[in-house]
Amino acid sequence: MKVSVLFSGGKDSSLSALLLEPFFEVELVTCNFGLLPTGEIAAKTAEELHFPHRVLSLDREILEKAYELVLNEGFPRGAINYIHGRAVETLALDPAVKLIADGTRRDDRVPMLSISQVRSIEDRLGVQYFCPLKGCGKKIVDSLVGAYLNIEQGPSESTQKADYETELRELIRQRQGEAAIKELFPVHFQSHVFSRKKFP
Amino acid sequence: MKVSVLFSGGKDSSLSALLLEPFFEVELVTCNFGLLPTGEIAAKTAEELHFPHRVLSLDREILEKAYELVLNEGFPRGAINYIHGRAVETLALDPAVKLIADGTRRDDRVPMLSISQVRSIEDRLGVQYFCPLKGCGKKIVDSLVGAYLNIEQGPSESTQKADYETELRELIRQRQGEAAIKELFPVHFQSHVFSRKKFP
Repeated sequence: MKVSVLFSGGKDSSLSALLLEPFFEVELVTCNFGLLPTGEIAAKTAEELHFPHRVLSLDREILEKAYELVLNEGFPRGAINYIHGRAVETLALDPAVKLIADGTRRDDRVPMLSISQVRSIEDRLGVQYFCPLKGCGKKIVDSLVGAYLNIEQGPSESTQKADYETELRELIRQRQGEAAIKELFPVHFQSHVFSRKKFP
Repeated sequence: MKVSVLFSGGKDSSLSALLLEPFFEVELVTCNFGLLPTGEIAAKTAEELHFPHRVLSLDREILEKAYELVLNEGFPRGAINYIHGRAVETLALDPAVKLIADGTRRDDRVPMLSISQVRSIEDRLGVQYFCPLKGCGKKIVDSLVGAYLNIEQGPSESTQKADYETELRELIRQRQGEAAIKELFPVHFQSHVFSRKKFP
């Protein structure tokens, strides 16, 4: 069975791919709006991890809608969740895609699909969506990451990543300036994965 | 890292153990109240799956409390969840146990710990509890089971299993008779695992 894992180059999506590897044919998929070369950053990480990788172009109107959401709401949660839902739907429309996974963890609040969103996508689009880390708390994830991955961690504004936030921030920077970023996005620590420490 | 997987001999706990095997040192643990030889049934299955296995004796007062619950409530959900919570706690009290996993799936309603129960057990007892199938719907689980396990399915009353329900039903049978079982327990299909189909 082939599974398409939504891949940001961060530790959660990387670890999800590793956990699925013994049981599935894994491909990594990074979403991109054409604003920044996030697909290339992710492709480099995917190569280090020895997984096939491709970039999925998302409609710019999805980013525009997310831009409106974050400005209206004053924080990025709804916007990131909106992009995530549309990304899963776009991937699910590919007739070659039957299984979709991502790095959502037990304690994540964003990006996160509700169970009714998941069932709706599964029923309408004939795919199965699942999250290998959904039943795992932070300590288990950190232990596995520590055992299998070489990572760099840093504040979200300086860490090279290919998540939905990266291009959303860039669009806001272009239109609203640097100050708007600091106001709208709480600084949080992000991880960038370099390579594998070992193979299971 | 060693993980103790709560094991009923059914497909969900068996599959959970298989998914963890490449990344952890897995031991299977079956809970027993001393009423029926469920530990022996599970031990046989564990041997077929090539995992180390042990039986964890649970206090009979847990079963007595569950018995009261099912009679008072008229259905077994609360009783099974109660046993499950106490089983995880009992296992967590073993100083050699640091990681506990079970076969809970995305769409399960029982046995199921709430997120606050999980955090309470993790914080009080210094263990991590996780569920490899928690982010998986029925179809993904069925696909993986179909690929890796030989199973037999049948109605819950006739399938040999070592789950919490087995001894709870037996206690009710002894005290209330066969008719009470039919009244209190909805017939549902259970799986019994025979062996592995293949190794990943």
